[in-house]
Amino acid sequence: MKFICSKTALVNGVRTVNKAVTKRSTMSILECILINTTDGEIRLTGTDTELGIETLVDGQVEDRGIVAIEAGIFTDIVSNLPDDGDVIVESDENFVTHITCNKANFNIVGKSGEEYPYLPELNRNDSVIISQMALRDVIRQTIFSIAEGGDDSTNQQSMRGELMEIFGDSIRLSSLDGHRISIRRIQLKDVYDSKKVIVPGKSLNEISKILTGGADDDVEISFNPNHIMFEFENTKVVSRLIEGSFFDVDKMNIKDHETKFKVNKRAFMECINRANLLVKEGDKKPIILDIRDDRVYMMINSTAGNMKEDIEIEKYGKDLMIAFNPKFVLDALKVIEDDEVELYFVNSKAPCFIKNNSETYIYVVLPINFNSIH
Amino acid sequence: MKFICSKTALVNGVRTVNKAVTKRSTMSILECILINTTDGEIRLTGTDTELGIETLVDGQVEDRGIVAIEAGIFTDIVSNLPDDGDVIVESDENFVTHITCNKANFNIVGKSGEEYPYLPELNRNDSVIISQMALRDVIRQTIFSIAEGGDDSTNQQSMRGELMEIFGDSIRLSSLDGHRISIRRIQLKDVYDSKKVIVPGKSLNEISKILTGGADDDVEISFNPNHIMFEFENTKVVSRLIEGSFFDVDKMNIKDHETKFKVNKRAFMECINRANLLVKEGDKKPIILDIRDDRVYMMINSTAGNMKEDIEIEKYGKDLMIAFNPKFVLDALKVIEDDEVELYFVNSKAPCFIKNNSETYIYVVLPINFNSIH
Repeated sequence: MKFICSKTALVNGVRTVNKAVTKRSTMSILECILINTTDGEIRLTGTDTELGIETLVDGQVEDRGIVAIEAGIFTDIVSNLPDDGDVIVESDENFVTHITCNKANFNIVGKSGEEYPYLPELNRNDSVIISQMALRDVIRQTIFSIAEGGDDSTNQQSMRGELMEIFGDSIRLSSLDGHRISIRRIQLKDVYDSKKVIVPGKSLNEISKILTGGADDDVEISFNPNHIMFEFENTKVVSRLIEGSFFDVDKMNIKDHETKFKVNKRAFMECINRANLLVKEGDKKPIILDIRDDRVYMMINSTAGNMKEDIEIEKYGKDLMIAFNPKFVLDALKVIEDDEVELYFVNSKAPCFIKNNSETYIYVVLPINFNSIH
Repeated sequence: MKFICSKTALVNGVRTVNKAVTKRSTMSILECILINTTDGEIRLTGTDTELGIETLVDGQVEDRGIVAIEAGIFTDIVSNLPDDGDVIVESDENFVTHITCNKANFNIVGKSGEEYPYLPELNRNDSVIISQMALRDVIRQTIFSIAEGGDDSTNQQSMRGELMEIFGDSIRLSSLDGHRISIRRIQLKDVYDSKKVIVPGKSLNEISKILTGGADDDVEISFNPNHIMFEFENTKVVSRLIEGSFFDVDKMNIKDHETKFKVNKRAFMECINRANLLVKEGDKKPIILDIRDDRVYMMINSTAGNMKEDIEIEKYGKDLMIAFNPKFVLDALKVIEDDEVELYFVNSKAPCFIKNNSETYIYVVLPINFNSIH
């Protein structure tokens, strides 16, 4: 196996596929990046068997072959090669790999790529196109409310992922952790057949890191019953899907409300953030919102001290007193771009909805039982 | 105790004194910042008894008194207050402290300041003036080769600090860890009496972080037999000195050499850095320098693989083969600003000196016994 390429191209390729490589795996081959030049292209692959990333590096194949190289040391070496001059990577029949650039010469011991798992092939007949920027944003704006695993029950498994739904010209991502729900919908350029899959949160997180393109750069998303594939530029990301059912977000009654207020997002977020300062790890003190006339009076009492503050609002409907985990409200406010936000309430025991009129975003936060506070 | 000040002034003050506060101390009072307004000024103090920092905050004292407040929560709160509006801090007779800024109100429980240790007073008769930037740079350029504590012997204690010497119009800092020595000398504007003290590395490190001034902003350094004090703007930093003797750097023979070479610093540093990639934690593989004719041939062999590279030099004297821990050479090269560096050698068992002609810097690296490599 032998190829020649630029340092920049190789560094970018290695960093991309590295996102799918686990640092310590029970299968040591999974700690490697696979280099495959058998079809005349420089193809790099990283996988942890749930998520796989494959990318093509621009360059010249001199000798076709396959080798697997430990990802950590390979990344360190290629990242620190001299900036000028081509990189030559060459493996012998014992998988000893020579990396040369100008006067710098490395020899490292590689492995046979025979045991390296192949990425599944997906049919592109029914694929969906979305801009890289939109996909990256929508992941960032929903991923924080994913459940943090642990439990093995089917329900918990599905909460480790996000529900991705395609219907008409919309794509919608939903995540939930039992205390809150985040829902984002974006419009696509075309109309597609309906689809509904649960994508592991870890996969979405890694994909969002390697989607560096802008609004005009597209990603093509393809599906089979067990996998989802994201393709952009020279890169292909394949993730397993999570089996099971997901909470039906459309069954929530989000139309009715008894109280609603509009508030300056930044000022409100800063208030909640100040309240959150008094909440220490493991100590679940709620922030109480006393929604009265044209103000919200906020207060929090914790072992560290207490805080109160009030803020001007535009209120519609009844006065209401309700309590929340300040972090959950904060997380939602952080990813909303609007200058003003609207919050909808039914009573002190029903969820609060933070949403815009077009409902391109809906953040649901469950209140903390008010009686248990006193 | 009551005072009013701007948020910016208070945040800066709190962050400055925080550098001396230990997160978890056996004396819980040391986890606090002391606020003292008894002399009509807003004086903040933080100390861990080895290092103490005191700073004055611009503002208005309304009620004289003393209170100690847990540093972590106080820093969090003042950093997150609204940006507009004055901050009012007021403590009652039970040390409950109210922090108000616009509509934001916090109450936190403070402590009596009675048990809080006073910083020692130092005489300024014989103090030394140096620019903030010069002191910050010289600390950064020597602190990395300080010994990392652990041992209780007197010798080890002194190696936890840096030797600071004043002689004539020079200040010199030296640090060493048994494998290497870093020496930096800078010129002062005035001539002073000779002084020789050992300052704890931790104190120097914290001081370098709060010295934000430039070349024209001065620090005044004062001494007593057990303490050193650094004063600048509204801030006073007092550190205990380390007792004991320090290695006499002037006894080293740095004049004689059998081999010398001049090399492009950046290119040489990049080579050594590449070699260092193959050295894993705890695996002390040396880089071998084969200094021959007009090149240095470098090679390293580790469990991860091997690397070789050569670089053009201007050589004077004999050919030589010598081995080093690449990290030690790298650390010295990183803090040298010159485009070209000169390395001096006697033989493969004697220390290597990296120094400039005026000897404002001297970095000494001990070689690794060459015979033990093979």
